[in-house]
Amino acid sequence: MKLFDGGRAPNPRRVRVFLAEKGLSVPLVPVDMGAMEHRREAVSSRNPLQRLPVLELDDGTILTESVAICRYFEEVQPEPPLFGTGAVGKARVEMWQRRVELNLFNAVAAAFRHLHPAMKEWEVPQIPAWGEANKPKAVEFLRFLDGELDGREFIAGGSYTIADITGLIAIDFMKPARIQVPPDCTHVQRWYQAVSSRPSATA
Amino acid sequence: MKLFDGGRAPNPRRVRVFLAEKGLSVPLVPVDMGAMEHRREAVSSRNPLQRLPVLELDDGTILTESVAICRYFEEVQPEPPLFGTGAVGKARVEMWQRRVELNLFNAVAAAFRHLHPAMKEWEVPQIPAWGEANKPKAVEFLRFLDGELDGREFIAGGSYTIADITGLIAIDFMKPARIQVPPDCTHVQRWYQAVSSRPSATA
Repeated sequence: MKLFDGGRAPNPRRVRVFLAEKGLSVPLVPVDMGAMEHRREAVSSRNPLQRLPVLELDDGTILTESVAICRYFEEVQPEPPLFGTGAVGKARVEMWQRRVELNLFNAVAAAFRHLHPAMKEWEVPQIPAWGEANKPKAVEFLRFLDGELDGREFIAGGSYTIADITGLIAIDFMKPARIQVPPDCTHVQRWYQAVSSRPSATA
Repeated sequence: MKLFDGGRAPNPRRVRVFLAEKGLSVPLVPVDMGAMEHRREAVSSRNPLQRLPVLELDDGTILTESVAICRYFEEVQPEPPLFGTGAVGKARVEMWQRRVELNLFNAVAAAFRHLHPAMKEWEVPQIPAWGEANKPKAVEFLRFLDGELDGREFIAGGSYTIADITGLIAIDFMKPARIQVPPDCTHVQRWYQAVSSRPSATA
């Protein structure tokens, strides 16, 4: 098994944090996305969409999409459960994973990709107005999340889950996207301190 | 249990098709999105993000996000499996569900929301350039999917899954978004004929 990894990019990191929380170690194949190596043969023959990460199993099976790769590891090693337990628990984690991804992660990514000069070759065409429109969307969701985190330890409930991983990565991604967590979002700040202090956050 | 439903909108339909494939019947509470009823108390007290569908269980538990609601029903009634079976099978369905959603469904939705005059109050600000930029993204993904569907019955493999539901709904959504399936995408056309002929497609 080997994981084609993309270094600092958010989606590859999502899988590395997940693996760290599971206590799993998978051989990494580093791919230099800054040098556009993800558009070369090694990646594009495995994932024609030319995106990372890509997991290759020993029998040659290819899995792409960070959350799908995480789901694979959840199935082969259920403990600790990071996608929830029971019908309601699993649905609640999926609900929060999607809420955070659709309303925060995607908004931050759009702001970064459509506004950052380094993204000119990546996002064609760059549409700065769309990048700007996403900044208040991200902040608005953080205000909603702040109310939810009042009295709740983690995003989907009392346990750390993949929704927290997506949230952590989205907030770290806000720095290059030049969006700030509002200072009065004290519950988000407390939660962010907690999740970014876990050893997995350095993955 | 009751499902707050949004009529013709794509995400509510995604859950209705899923339930039809499971042979499940859930009492629906119709919400007229055209009249902005999803912004009124009945929905916004249950989902402050004011989006549909919303599932309310008998004990008052609220689940939102179409795919999370589908996941709940998959857990309570596993047959027929629409999220895959086994670690690789589940991961492969999730991979395809995400590929179709991120590259097709979201692109079609962006074209519709940023270009259609009826969406002016919904998507603020409407950015026509972003809507236009998404049309070729949707077509590009359909060409990739066409190659994948050469010799494969359904999007994620030999069985109908939630990835097919997302694909069906995305393609039906292309009509109001004014995007066409390229006529030479014969495998996509064949697959679309098959999935849209199933009784569930009328849900």
